[in-house]
Amino acid sequence: MLIAKIIGTTVATIKDPKLEGRKLLICREADETGKATGKPYVAIDTVNAGVGDLVLTAHGSSGRQTDITKDTPVDAVIMAVIDSLQVDGANTYKK
Amino acid sequence: MLIAKIIGTTVATIKDPKLEGRKLLICREADETGKATGKPYVAIDTVNAGVGDLVLTAHGSSGRQTDITKDTPVDAVIMAVIDSLQVDGANTYKK
Amino acid sequence: MLIAKIIGTTVATIKDPKLEGRKLLICREADETGKATGKPYVAIDTVNAGVGDLVLTAHGSSGRQTDITKDTPVDAVIMAVIDSLQVDGANTYKK
Amino acid sequence: MLIAKIIGTTVATIKDPKLEGRKLLICREADETGKATGKPYVAIDTVNAGVGDLVLTAHGSSGRQTDITKDTPVDAVIMAVIDSLQVDGANTYKK
Amino acid sequence: MLIAKIIGTTVATIKDPKLEGRKLLICREADETGKATGKPYVAIDTVNAGVGDLVLTAHGSSGRQTDITKDTPVDAVIMAVIDSLQVDGANTYKK
Repeated sequence: MLIAKIIGTTVATIKDPKLEGRKLLICREADETGKATGKPYVAIDTVNAGVGDLVLTAHGSSGRQTDITKDTPVDAVIMAVIDSLQVDGANTYKK
Repeated sequence: MLIAKIIGTTVATIKDPKLEGRKLLICREADETGKATGKPYVAIDTVNAGVGDLVLTAHGSSGRQTDITKDTPVDAVIMAVIDSLQVDGANTYKK
Repeated sequence: MLIAKIIGTTVATIKDPKLEGRKLLICREADETGKATGKPYVAIDTVNAGVGDLVLTAHGSSGRQTDITKDTPVDAVIMAVIDSLQVDGANTYKK
Repeated sequence: MLIAKIIGTTVATIKDPKLEGRKLLICREADETGKATGKPYVAIDTVNAGVGDLVLTAHGSSGRQTDITKDTPVDAVIMAVIDSLQVDGANTYKK
Repeated sequence: MLIAKIIGTTVATIKDPKLEGRKLLICREADETGKATGKPYVAIDTVNAGVGDLVLTAHGSSGRQTDITKDTPVDAVIMAVIDSLQVDGANTYKK
């Protein structure tokens, strides 16, 4: 899974019918301190996450292993909200 | 999913029979403001998108979870047309 | 799918039995003008393509959705020969 | 599989229910001498690995082929703890 | 598939039980002349390959389409030993 920062939202009226009503959040890959360093991508929310949250995203077919994303044309899903990260015994991120 | 700009079209007479009649659009990865910054790839259209549109593309096996791409040798599908993008509460792209 | 130029061939006597008799072509990723710019990879031919052709390749499990590659340990397949590419209304490649 | 160094841990209270009780370890890709050189990602532990261990991680749908990760929205799994690496006949890493 | 050079071996006592007895070889991506240029990864051998061989590796779910890797948490498999590579009509590699 990637550590990712949610930086924004996407509005799309015309979309695959299975995506109706789903939140399409813009994420950016983050490092082990929670700092957004990577390029943007869009993931479906399944854990009621919001802009500013640090989250974990699962990709590819693994992104379809939730009740919300099953059998949908979706390749990235937010499946956890991160409370804290620890590296070498020290907190590097805390919500 | 990737944010992508549709920049062109592909003509291919000789192709897998399951792709007969499908639109093969050239996309380039875009950033959170809708600016094309990445390298080109080709995706199958499923939402009647056209050149110039900013879209979302799903990749890998997820690209086969639409009625049009089911069981086809296709690894990228356009599954939404983006109306607008919001980052930090401000519109960064509007169609 | 990736736009790719076929640059060569691979000979491999010892291989997975399901690959017996299959053409293993060396491809390089190309840009929207058909110029090879990326790194090499090997794909199975399913459309009678040859060295010098500009083609589309599908990757991952999508590469196994053809009669030739079904259930084989193959992650890249040539599924179309490109006749022409159009960007911004102009031909950028013609066979 | 990637050679990876476990550098830390992740705490996430809100997560997909199937991940309840699973260890979410922060990994960094390592080279053939065991030195962490790549960017961080999070993997599920299935072999009782811990911070500081050099491990192998499997990705994508392959990450779901263990009893622990079956049918879960998980795309990276730790499936081996590395004892030693040999390159050109010499040990480049020993636990 | 990637062209890869086998550069070493991995010893791992603690591992997923399905990997018992399998050879874990360290590969590095190679170019069309057989020169190792990419970063290291570990693949399961299915064709009796050894250190120094130039091989083809299949990735992702495609890596599980052999009798040896079926249903295992493995995302890279060696499925062919390369005898020779030809680019532009000339041999660029010969075993």
